[in-house]
Amino acid sequence: GHLHNSEAFNYGVETWEAYKRGGLSKDLVEEQRKVQEADLLIFQFPLFWFNMPAILKGWMDRVWVQGFAYDLSKSYDGGLLQDKLSLFSFTTGGSKEKYAIRGDIRYLLWPMQHGIMHFCGVKVLEPHICYAPENVSEEKRKEMLTAWTQRLKTLWKEEPIDCSPEWYFK
Amino acid sequence: GHLHNSEAFNYGVETWEAYKRGGLSKDLVEEQRKVQEADLLIFQFPLFWFNMPAILKGWMDRVWVQGFAYDLSKSYDGGLLQDKLSLFSFTTGGSKEKYAIRGDIRYLLWPMQHGIMHFCGVKVLEPHICYAPENVSEEKRKEMLTAWTQRLKTLWKEEPIDCSPEWYFK
Repeated sequence: GHLHNSEAFNYGVETWEAYKRGGLSKDLVEEQRKVQEADLLIFQFPLFWFNMPAILKGWMDRVWVQGFAYDLSKSYDGGLLQDKLSLFSFTTGGSKEKYAIRGDIRYLLWPMQHGIMHFCGVKVLEPHICYAPENVSEEKRKEMLTAWTQRLKTLWKEEPIDCSPEWYFK
Repeated sequence: GHLHNSEAFNYGVETWEAYKRGGLSKDLVEEQRKVQEADLLIFQFPLFWFNMPAILKGWMDRVWVQGFAYDLSKSYDGGLLQDKLSLFSFTTGGSKEKYAIRGDIRYLLWPMQHGIMHFCGVKVLEPHICYAPENVSEEKRKEMLTAWTQRLKTLWKEEPIDCSPEWYFK
């Protein structure tokens, strides 16, 4: 459709306005419908550069537009996607020990859990991390799958975690 | 070209092997050449969801392959892209005050500065952050541009910062 402001193009404002007048492209509307209907969002991906792969990041950038996922006056516990749960489940290249040295896991979770989910009001379940599946035995890999299968069975009984604990705020 | 291992496809291994035998696609080789020739890499972008926009994240995911940017035995201070400098220069949607409440800026810089640059041996200059340019006066925006112009003039005299300070490691 036409631009809301053709004098000064602002991507964020244009998608916000397009969302409000139902002018987003069909694939985005469809993805937003899926998010809206979901009670639980599981993000499963291989960790690339301490974050999600670009294709998933692009899904966040394009689908979670202002008006749908957040509003500057409605964020964090008052966010637009309240009453939903999310879970980040990812595989890493490095071992658990390597990530533990610098507390990397806590810091890399912050932008995703706090910066995206919490910002939009989505509650967060304990992340599910499979460390270095490429470098462990076939048996270990099967154990990882079994553990995930087991966890899924009782996922609904889990309580959200505090993804923005006090120690971050110093 | 042909797959290194067609029995079990592993994206990371395939790009690594392709890099070694010169089998990466031309656009990647060209981007790697630019990185190789550069003394200073300036990443300029609008902050999207506490990280770089997907299109830039995709550039990192695709261009900075194992063998070129890092090697599991050669990382951090011994990384493959030593003797290069980097600088993250970005604009935000929210105000400085909003980001300051939770120390968000420190945490969102970690994956980019420590997780990518430091991991590959690239030194990091003080980030350059323009807060909420959309919401400030035209005069303030001009000041932001002037400050950046001024900084660029003496950038070569700046010393790298410690992007992985001790307080992270608790």
